[in-house]
Amino acid sequence: MTVLDKKAIRTLPEAAIAAFRQRFGERFITSMAVREHHGTDESPYPVCPPEAVIFPRDTDEVVDAVKICNQYKVPVIPFGIGSSLEGHVLPIEGGVTLDFNEMNKVLAINAEDFTVTVQPGVIRTQLNDEIRHTGLFFPIDPGAHASIGGMTSTRASGTNAVRYGTMRENVVSMKVVTATGKVIRTSSRARKSSSGYDLTRLFVGSEGTLGIIVEVTVRVYPQPEAVTAAICNFPTLESAVQSVIEIMQSGVAIARVEFMDTRAVKAVNAYSKLTLKETPLLLFEFHGSETGVREQAEIVQEIAKDNGGMDFEWAEKPEDRKRLWTARHNSHYSGLQLRPGSRSVATDVCVPISRLAECVSETAQELEDMPFPYTIVGHVGDGNFHVQMLIDPDSREEWDMSEGINRRLVSRAIRMDGTCSGEHGVGIHKMEFLKEEHGEDALQLMRLIKHAYDPNNIFNPGKLVSWDA
Amino acid sequence: MTVLDKKAIRTLPEAAIAAFRQRFGERFITSMAVREHHGTDESPYPVCPPEAVIFPRDTDEVVDAVKICNQYKVPVIPFGIGSSLEGHVLPIEGGVTLDFNEMNKVLAINAEDFTVTVQPGVIRTQLNDEIRHTGLFFPIDPGAHASIGGMTSTRASGTNAVRYGTMRENVVSMKVVTATGKVIRTSSRARKSSSGYDLTRLFVGSEGTLGIIVEVTVRVYPQPEAVTAAICNFPTLESAVQSVIEIMQSGVAIARVEFMDTRAVKAVNAYSKLTLKETPLLLFEFHGSETGVREQAEIVQEIAKDNGGMDFEWAEKPEDRKRLWTARHNSHYSGLQLRPGSRSVATDVCVPISRLAECVSETAQELEDMPFPYTIVGHVGDGNFHVQMLIDPDSREEWDMSEGINRRLVSRAIRMDGTCSGEHGVGIHKMEFLKEEHGEDALQLMRLIKHAYDPNNIFNPGKLVSWDA
Repeated sequence: MTVLDKKAIRTLPEAAIAAFRQRFGERFITSMAVREHHGTDESPYPVCPPEAVIFPRDTDEVVDAVKICNQYKVPVIPFGIGSSLEGHVLPIEGGVTLDFNEMNKVLAINAEDFTVTVQPGVIRTQLNDEIRHTGLFFPIDPGAHASIGGMTSTRASGTNAVRYGTMRENVVSMKVVTATGKVIRTSSRARKSSSGYDLTRLFVGSEGTLGIIVEVTVRVYPQPEAVTAAICNFPTLESAVQSVIEIMQSGVAIARVEFMDTRAVKAVNAYSKLTLKETPLLLFEFHGSETGVREQAEIVQEIAKDNGGMDFEWAEKPEDRKRLWTARHNSHYSGLQLRPGSRSVATDVCVPISRLAECVSETAQELEDMPFPYTIVGHVGDGNFHVQMLIDPDSREEWDMSEGINRRLVSRAIRMDGTCSGEHGVGIHKMEFLKEEHGEDALQLMRLIKHAYDPNNIFNPGKLVSWDA
Repeated sequence: MTVLDKKAIRTLPEAAIAAFRQRFGERFITSMAVREHHGTDESPYPVCPPEAVIFPRDTDEVVDAVKICNQYKVPVIPFGIGSSLEGHVLPIEGGVTLDFNEMNKVLAINAEDFTVTVQPGVIRTQLNDEIRHTGLFFPIDPGAHASIGGMTSTRASGTNAVRYGTMRENVVSMKVVTATGKVIRTSSRARKSSSGYDLTRLFVGSEGTLGIIVEVTVRVYPQPEAVTAAICNFPTLESAVQSVIEIMQSGVAIARVEFMDTRAVKAVNAYSKLTLKETPLLLFEFHGSETGVREQAEIVQEIAKDNGGMDFEWAEKPEDRKRLWTARHNSHYSGLQLRPGSRSVATDVCVPISRLAECVSETAQELEDMPFPYTIVGHVGDGNFHVQMLIDPDSREEWDMSEGINRRLVSRAIRMDGTCSGEHGVGIHKMEFLKEEHGEDALQLMRLIKHAYDPNNIFNPGKLVSWDA
């Protein structure tokens, strides 16, 4: 059984319940089924239900819910689809969950400006479906079918980040409800600005702890004229990483470059019925003109060969590419099949790419001694990799072992001038590492913002930065 | 005579002077010549000297200077090379200027990770000279030979931003001295992170009002294998802008695309002894492989032609390219020659590109009625443009007229969902517009950070965000 360090649950005062009932009627939901759904994410933690759930329909409803929460010091937790891996949406101090499922409209497509404005409940695949006719696309693709609000809150990224950046680079502006119930806009739709503190970047990655996002404007890109993919086996991890460093130094603007260790390849083969050669491998994707992608792929093939890469294989046909990338995207789920009935403990770190091979190797060496299966996959161009450990949900010992792996992995990444999370976020699970990574003084600067923006500690309390030093 | 709204000058307490003398001896400089130099920038404001100047040699000296300032509530103003256009470095409340001229070392080049760590006094051209041998370059190029510290503080950009981003995207990490004299690091060197509030982006663009930057790690890029430039005349501004929108929609990753109005072209011809055809024009630059840049240029030529572009001319030879781009970079200085003895009032705004033609046209129409010459140039791919007005330094009337133009230009940009400054920053000159752009509630969120980080209001007071609502 995994452990959840619940803080003191703040029970809902009667007066607060009355105020919610008056404003939301039957839509202030307290049924256990709904609450339990909102006390669950994809982290290894047990269910932790909120006291109640509201599905707001518009900004005004969010404002009113926040005002009641602030008046009665009730925690308020925004919820997208619950795909967090680090416990972000678990209401560990109780409170009310705002589920953005009904605020799921694409509000404006400004194709000439390469921006799209959405409500936070819009799912990333839905966004791409709705803008496809414009010839544009939104590149950020975490493993889950996440909501734009959730992706903004965790500073999500995915396989395209090496070329297109993360949510940090691709959120243009937001509307946010503050603790006092004001609706602010973090910036204009201009591509750049030197006007004032960067509130946009402050709210991106703030995990619901500073305010509630009610609208997000993101940047979109022209769909590339041509796309090709390729796959290449390598004798070792080191040779694969060295290839990627040289590819990036060559100036090839590679769109995706993903690493899978032998175990991840095996899992994907089994789950997705593929016949990939079971060695460390790199999956590439190139975006550009017809001649451009061919040229890029040739340079990459050359560099890979020089580093011992074998069996460089093209996937020019869309159906082949789709099969490969679907397999990669499903690697979380294929990993789960390595041990039916197991619970997945997933973690991610990010280091400067010059240290990546060393960081992955040391981690893999430790994992070899564990009694449970694991996989390692990585967004290698960014120096970001994921470890998935499949533990027995009833074994306290395996949980402790996986926690030890996680702790040492994070320390290793920080020692190598990296970060405790490249894209999953802090949530509950990584709070303890922030001091090691940022130092107490920088952490205090974060805390000052939390205290100033949320004096009653209502916004997703107990997450990201601890209230007390 | 232009007007400077000096706030109450805080005179240096005797005890503070004694503390400075004890720590810095003769290097606590109070000679009027040095003070006047540090009371001058490239804004239209009159000289406003600090009470004293220190040239710190290392972080410890900055820490000690800040501690004394905080203890005695003395303003402290960081100074790079004084190329601000908006009065950023003018000590309008008095205080001590820290000139970073002696902290000008490149500290670390991590070529595999595409990062370089520098002291804040490093000049952008110096940085490129020092990393040239690695095959890498730093793309951000404001008009001035600015310091990296200054560029970080104003969220600077320049002609390459359409492809490589601004300082917002290219500062990886910083070391900053806080009001209590702590030295914090804003983040690791990982390319991406979901670990905590984005302190890096908070300090980028904060104009010295939240802390003193003592180290900056920036992102660098492979020097492109091939570079070509081209120039194209257009019948109208609208046709030029429409071309750029279509170029960007085509997916061509254009490296630079600059607009110059007829007046700017005339000024550049006169100053740089060129023979450019005197119509609205676009200057392009393409980065990539030999075949890639050729292909890009061909697509661009086609699109330009479809929009009425004429006389598309290549500049493949480095010396031709250099002449063109030097002319563009010197446009601020060539503009000055339009009216010898004049004072330049420069302003910049940024709008969504779909509104750019309209915003520039309306502005040009107003300028036509003014008694002074002007030029308009723009980083058109970003929707960012500059107006330079050459006013009689002794005419209060012309100053007031230029202020009126600036005020209406900013309102126009904000109405079009743009920003009061694309890259020059707020400084003193644009403070009055922040409420119009961001709204009082968002401005209050900025102010909360200022109050929390700088309770004694010592960091460049009277700039960016007003202390009181």
